Amino acid sequence: MRALVTGAAGFIGSTLVDRLLVEGHEVTGLDNFSTGFRQFLEGARANPRFRLLETDLLDLDAVKQSMAGTEIVFHLAANADVRFGPERTRVDLEQNTIVTWNVLEGMRVNGVKRIAFSSTGSVYGEPEVFPTPEKAPFPLQTSLYGASKVAAEGMISAYATAFGFQAFIFRFVSILGERYTHGHVFDFYRQLLAHPERLDVLGNGLQRKSYLYVQDCVNAILLVAGKCTDAVNIFNLGTDEYCQVNDSIGWICGHLGIDPQRRYAGGERGWVGDSPFIFLDCARMRSLGWRPELTIQQGIIRTLEFLQRNAWVLEARG
Amino acid sequence: MRALVTGAAGFIGSTLVDRLLVEGHEVTGLDNFSTGFRQFLEGARANPRFRLLETDLLDLDAVKQSMAGTEIVFHLAANADVRFGPERTRVDLEQNTIVTWNVLEGMRVNGVKRIAFSSTGSVYGEPEVFPTPEKAPFPLQTSLYGASKVAAEGMISAYATAFGFQAFIFRFVSILGERYTHGHVFDFYRQLLAHPERLDVLGNGLQRKSYLYVQDCVNAILLVAGKCTDAVNIFNLGTDEYCQVNDSIGWICGHLGIDPQRRYAGGERGWVGDSPFIFLDCARMRSLGWRPELTIQQGIIRTLEFLQRNAWVLEARG
Repeated sequence: MRALVTGAAGFIGSTLVDRLLVEGHEVTGLDNFSTGFRQFLEGARANPRFRLLETDLLDLDAVKQSMAGTEIVFHLAANADVRFGPERTRVDLEQNTIVTWNVLEGMRVNGVKRIAFSSTGSVYGEPEVFPTPEKAPFPLQTSLYGASKVAAEGMISAYATAFGFQAFIFRFVSILGERYTHGHVFDFYRQLLAHPERLDVLGNGLQRKSYLYVQDCVNAILLVAGKCTDAVNIFNLGTDEYCQVNDSIGWICGHLGIDPQRRYAGGERGWVGDSPFIFLDCARMRSLGWRPELTIQQGIIRTLEFLQRNAWVLEARG
Repeated sequence: MRALVTGAAGFIGSTLVDRLLVEGHEVTGLDNFSTGFRQFLEGARANPRFRLLETDLLDLDAVKQSMAGTEIVFHLAANADVRFGPERTRVDLEQNTIVTWNVLEGMRVNGVKRIAFSSTGSVYGEPEVFPTPEKAPFPLQTSLYGASKVAAEGMISAYATAFGFQAFIFRFVSILGERYTHGHVFDFYRQLLAHPERLDVLGNGLQRKSYLYVQDCVNAILLVAGKCTDAVNIFNLGTDEYCQVNDSIGWICGHLGIDPQRRYAGGERGWVGDSPFIFLDCARMRSLGWRPELTIQQGIIRTLEFLQRNAWVLEARG
């Protein structure tokens, strides 16, 4: 098939691009390289079935022009960092909500009807039910990031209703693995490189979180896009387990063979809008036969090994 | 208090402005007169406690400048017509989502902390539970209008979390009464003036809908804003009844003393994204002691009488 991937130079986007190419598809990758890395597309660019467009998704005309001949859009471009909403209040609106409308509009005018979208477990805010199912009670948003993804989900579903689109929406937990370039493993590892004797931790370390390995994530996306037939298909995507931030610190320090002093900022939440407990009910995804291959602990170690082999990523993120 | 009302020249906005002035408050009204009417503000403009600003809410600088000294914002400006999303796909994003972000941002930079917001029962899409409570299962959006209001609700809640705002969010059924300028009573009455012998009806006439009289709506908004203390307060707002479109046609024709031939367009839905059954659980609102004073039938007749006395509204809407 002829696929278009937005955020193609990002962590999940570039991993998906590589997989689509392995499976024989034609792939157009869009990225503005605001947070993506050219290095992640080195393999893809050597493949004649890959085309890279350096496009800013806020440029509606450019988005429309990029989509001719596309059969399915994997819309992964986003501001993926939930933490900085209160400091930069317009970023999530622009990069997640308005950009998604531009993608939908580009699809509509080009007659492209299928879209897979990276939403987030953050759309559940601070849930009342654990593990949290897709049909959880109508949640209250606690972050601009979550609000912007709910907005995008809503527009995608409305386009599906109005224009006969088929949509695959994935509410991810945090994703880990090769090409991971932001998040707690990144932050902790960078700190421990600079000062192995101490580790500053946001919150009280008791936050409970769930994580998923990037290849397991890509497996799920491709399985759903190939198999599901509803107009709008929404899936939680995570492992059937969670860990405390303190567990993760233990695994990371154990792997590095160090025992830093932990200094906690305190509080149940790591930042404004942080959800102290994320644990998604992924029974719907498992009912399709999908199983994650790595545990959270294995995913964290895999991530750490990637960062150890790729010091340039830490330098590039300044 | 010093209140700011967006959409001040609109149906609900102007009714709220008048009420706030009667209660002795200082009121700044914002409107760009794209769908509002200057006539609705004639009474208010004679009051020295009223100030009118002709402002386009897409102009962020103007919004910021309008809010100095405000204690509470009643954000009622919106594209309120759910029907035309598929023809004008950007309207809901701009007028409902982006405008709400501008309002929130204007509040933040001016230190304004309280907002009342007109959301909609359309955020429930096509619900699975009737009457539909505020905690219904996480719904699927079926209209760009509903999606844009969910987006606005989410941003408001996220601002409440991040910046200590207090929010009052109202999920309205359709509102009826004096100053009503669009909707099924308007459409039917206009048709029947032009050709009393026949009536064209969208859908099959069996759609079940709930309606609320505008003064009952304003009563609820002011009660909640004066009484509720949570950071985010969400209330369904409707009557504890519903009617079929055919019931409404019967009441309208009975009042007018005519018996037109009904021509149904057919189908369960009047338009793309129309919800065939809207019936909200308003127990939460009633628990505050609020009761609607008019039934749906009384509200429809009151609306019709307003239109009969104000032919200029029909002419102005072209």
